[in-house]
Amino acid sequence: MPNESNHLVIIGGVAAGMKAAAKARRESPTIKIIVVTDEQYISYAGCGMPYFIGDIIKDSKKLIVKEPSYLKNMHNIDVLTMHQATAIDIKAKQVQVKNLENGQAIVLNYDKLIIATGAQPIIPPLPGISLGNIFTLRTVNDALKIKSLVDSGKVKNAVIVGGGLIGLEMAENLVLRGIKVAVVELLDQILPPLDKDMAMLVQNHLTEKSVEIVTSDGVKSFEGNEGNCVTKVITGKRQLPADMVVLSIGIKPNIKLAQKAGIEIGATRAIKVNERMETNVLDIYAVGDCAESIHLVTGKPAWIALGSTAAKMGRVAAINATGGIDTFKGVLGTLIVKVFELNVGKVGLSEREAVKEGFKIESTIVPAGDMAHYYPGTRDIIIKLIADVTTRRLLGAEIVGEGVVDKRIDIIATALTFGATVDQISKLDLAYAPPYAMAMDALIIAANVLNNKLLGKTIGILPQKVVGKRDRVEDFILLDVRTEIEYKAGHIKGCQHIPLDKLASRANELDRSKEIITYCRAGLRAAQAYRILKNAGFNNVKYMDGGILAWTYGLEKNV
Amino acid sequence: MPNESNHLVIIGGVAAGMKAAAKARRESPTIKIIVVTDEQYISYAGCGMPYFIGDIIKDSKKLIVKEPSYLKNMHNIDVLTMHQATAIDIKAKQVQVKNLENGQAIVLNYDKLIIATGAQPIIPPLPGISLGNIFTLRTVNDALKIKSLVDSGKVKNAVIVGGGLIGLEMAENLVLRGIKVAVVELLDQILPPLDKDMAMLVQNHLTEKSVEIVTSDGVKSFEGNEGNCVTKVITGKRQLPADMVVLSIGIKPNIKLAQKAGIEIGATRAIKVNERMETNVLDIYAVGDCAESIHLVTGKPAWIALGSTAAKMGRVAAINATGGIDTFKGVLGTLIVKVFELNVGKVGLSEREAVKEGFKIESTIVPAGDMAHYYPGTRDIIIKLIADVTTRRLLGAEIVGEGVVDKRIDIIATALTFGATVDQISKLDLAYAPPYAMAMDALIIAANVLNNKLLGKTIGILPQKVVGKRDRVEDFILLDVRTEIEYKAGHIKGCQHIPLDKLASRANELDRSKEIITYCRAGLRAAQAYRILKNAGFNNVKYMDGGILAWTYGLEKNV
Repeated sequence: MPNESNHLVIIGGVAAGMKAAAKARRESPTIKIIVVTDEQYISYAGCGMPYFIGDIIKDSKKLIVKEPSYLKNMHNIDVLTMHQATAIDIKAKQVQVKNLENGQAIVLNYDKLIIATGAQPIIPPLPGISLGNIFTLRTVNDALKIKSLVDSGKVKNAVIVGGGLIGLEMAENLVLRGIKVAVVELLDQILPPLDKDMAMLVQNHLTEKSVEIVTSDGVKSFEGNEGNCVTKVITGKRQLPADMVVLSIGIKPNIKLAQKAGIEIGATRAIKVNERMETNVLDIYAVGDCAESIHLVTGKPAWIALGSTAAKMGRVAAINATGGIDTFKGVLGTLIVKVFELNVGKVGLSEREAVKEGFKIESTIVPAGDMAHYYPGTRDIIIKLIADVTTRRLLGAEIVGEGVVDKRIDIIATALTFGATVDQISKLDLAYAPPYAMAMDALIIAANVLNNKLLGKTIGILPQKVVGKRDRVEDFILLDVRTEIEYKAGHIKGCQHIPLDKLASRANELDRSKEIITYCRAGLRAAQAYRILKNAGFNNVKYMDGGILAWTYGLEKNV
Repeated sequence: MPNESNHLVIIGGVAAGMKAAAKARRESPTIKIIVVTDEQYISYAGCGMPYFIGDIIKDSKKLIVKEPSYLKNMHNIDVLTMHQATAIDIKAKQVQVKNLENGQAIVLNYDKLIIATGAQPIIPPLPGISLGNIFTLRTVNDALKIKSLVDSGKVKNAVIVGGGLIGLEMAENLVLRGIKVAVVELLDQILPPLDKDMAMLVQNHLTEKSVEIVTSDGVKSFEGNEGNCVTKVITGKRQLPADMVVLSIGIKPNIKLAQKAGIEIGATRAIKVNERMETNVLDIYAVGDCAESIHLVTGKPAWIALGSTAAKMGRVAAINATGGIDTFKGVLGTLIVKVFELNVGKVGLSEREAVKEGFKIESTIVPAGDMAHYYPGTRDIIIKLIADVTTRRLLGAEIVGEGVVDKRIDIIATALTFGATVDQISKLDLAYAPPYAMAMDALIIAANVLNNKLLGKTIGILPQKVVGKRDRVEDFILLDVRTEIEYKAGHIKGCQHIPLDKLASRANELDRSKEIITYCRAGLRAAQAYRILKNAGFNNVKYMDGGILAWTYGLEKNV
């Protein structure tokens, strides 16, 4: 049990820090708890800020979960806002603190210290970076400044630098405010955690929504007007008009304070902690965006800054710092983001990440309905699953679509936590009724398709590999097996067309010496065509996973 | 590998049977497949029928997934509709079949036989049961007959006998068609798979929607008019006007054919099968609603008839019957049902079931938002979790609410499959963004609350136990810690009221010698009040799980 006169000092007053403070108080009614933050606001919902700017959330007060006075009155937690922790003396067990309003220095003794210093946006040292109306979005003050500028009606064009989650949430919310938006991304795809094939589905959707997506291009400088406000973004290849710029190229953990105190920094450059959130220094914990974690699929250190992880870490540290025992085993890189009408999710390893980790993988892309096909409002989702060939264990999933994505991501997050095989996922007793799912849920169908590939029952090929073959001018037949009407409405350039119901009788029209890749709308008929051709003695046959729905490389019409 | 001349006979042409046929063809291009069904329609979506009657699904054709001609042409599967299998000769490996249209008898030889005879509604032998306009809802013809009667506009009052899933779906859909509906249930609650406390939430919602709910009362007879159509339902305690009756008291597996052939029947009275869906007779499989399964939480035989399970079983049997190897380990009793604006789900064991199985259990009820509280459209869900005290393993969950329920049910279904502890569930890396979840998902909050109870950190008491105490006139203080405004809008009769923010200073108003049970709206403030009182030296304190949101026993107003 913690001693009554014990002092718990927490550096950081947002997700992890405040969760730790609240939980510590519930664990111990008597411990003295002091939260120190260099910010003006505490306990705010950073993830809601794009929606505040987009006017989806009308009142900024809704983003503030708790006020210091409430924490003092209700929980006897002292919060020092606008106070910066400047040094930790691990021998004397003291934190040096500077009052940012009057410059005064104070010293706080601690018995236990929880570091929750968070992360900060990376700001590239480019010419013009200090011009007006160039923002990052991290704190409440950032959000208030951006909102105020947008509300002024003076922003016609905005450029978002960085096509990650926050960048895309900002793109949507600025478009909702009537602003013309361009997103500039240095990589050759937006949403870097996703594989390019799945990210392209999102990119095409953004383009449909009039967002200009610029990939494989980096910002070189910013130009401004006489008022020293930004007017133009100069990239390697073009110039983009900009009354406002949001920098969202990434964040980095705030580790300086810890590092200076001799606390160990991990391989990911975040503060190294064990399962109990303990740093290498006795009685010092680190939680939230400044702390490292373990990736539950690879078992390796990972740094993935998320509010959901921060809250769990804060809770675990609070329990341990007040004499209890709790552990946090790690993360799966689970993410979900709304991009206009699309829901976009990922959990575990992408195909690219899995290959990089040395796994021998098999993957598939399967479009399917999110509810019973006959129930009104059913929408498609496109599921990519990645598995380890040797153990048949699932390694990760990416899902994109207008249908319900988060449910399937969470099912897989749970399955990955327990090392599920693809076969086990295909047998899950998931909830079924027409308004919620198909009798065989989309995810179960996808697992069955992947299982067939893992067992060698079918040979599928992903669209991006088909494109690769086409780009290399390989000699193969791309066989469209959809109906005449579907074919005419749009097909892949250079394909041959035989509708599925004619395939058995017209198979002799196909050159047996060539590799044949069948495709349809979603993959089912392509797989049937694959079987018809195999049964007809064709040896070199594959079907294209995901069909037209997963094909992001353009179609040709033929009326 | 199956021999080319092999015959696979499948008895039953709906979910399990047709899935088995389709999968068998994919596994083996050459095996002869014959499906025998005594029905006119095959491959239909039985679960969609209430929504067809409710005019949510406009076209009955949408419910028919496949036609016999399609199966013959595309998959070389022979389907004999209106053909009844009358006997199985397991020695001669033959099925006797009668053509229901012309009475002709035929004999089908089989190498492998899959029994998918389904289940049939239980029809109680009550006086008047054969009157017109008394229906069951199982087949397409049932649905067409009910729809036709409803469309005629002649139904003013309908009585549904049985308050299970189909009964409630019918109640909603008939109300949507402008009909006054009463539901009669013999038990003291609707939705028998759920605990009564959770079922009461649904019952109250149905009452708000003008559905008359009659529990603890059974139908004694039906009365009719001169045209021999039902006009009245006579129960033990009342008479209900009825232009139409839907019997949904339950279903029983169709096992006669199997039983007569000497195939073993299980403890649940469904056909006994192993993981490969094999019966005790070589080369005979049973799948779908006629087959038994294993409950993955208890490890015991279970019979839970669902389309989702039928499809998975059919697939497994088809793989095994065509020379492959696949297994189906069992079910979790997962269910989901839409009841007007409520989503209602259950997975694993209810509290009542868990106690009956001999588990020493702890449970909690936790209301929480389904999205970030500040994101528009957030709705509450009420989660009940049941865990084993000894192992801290989760045993089951029930969730009711206007918010997203199916997602959390599926997460728990996945967790239960892998024997997750409550602690493991509280650490799941679930997808978080404001439009999808809170930073700590509702489910994680519920798991944390239950973990606190399991670890003895807090002592909660479920509303139904508080009612029990009140009914027994036990001497305890029920302490409302909500605000004055909330209290006046409605509170539990006989409570004492001290708002949470005054509790520390006014604790001396409470009688220390008495048991004190705190309550609020959802449980959070009650738990805070619990801690305040514990810290103030009160020894006999509990908080009420779930608060007013889970309190279904009426409120008193005080203006």
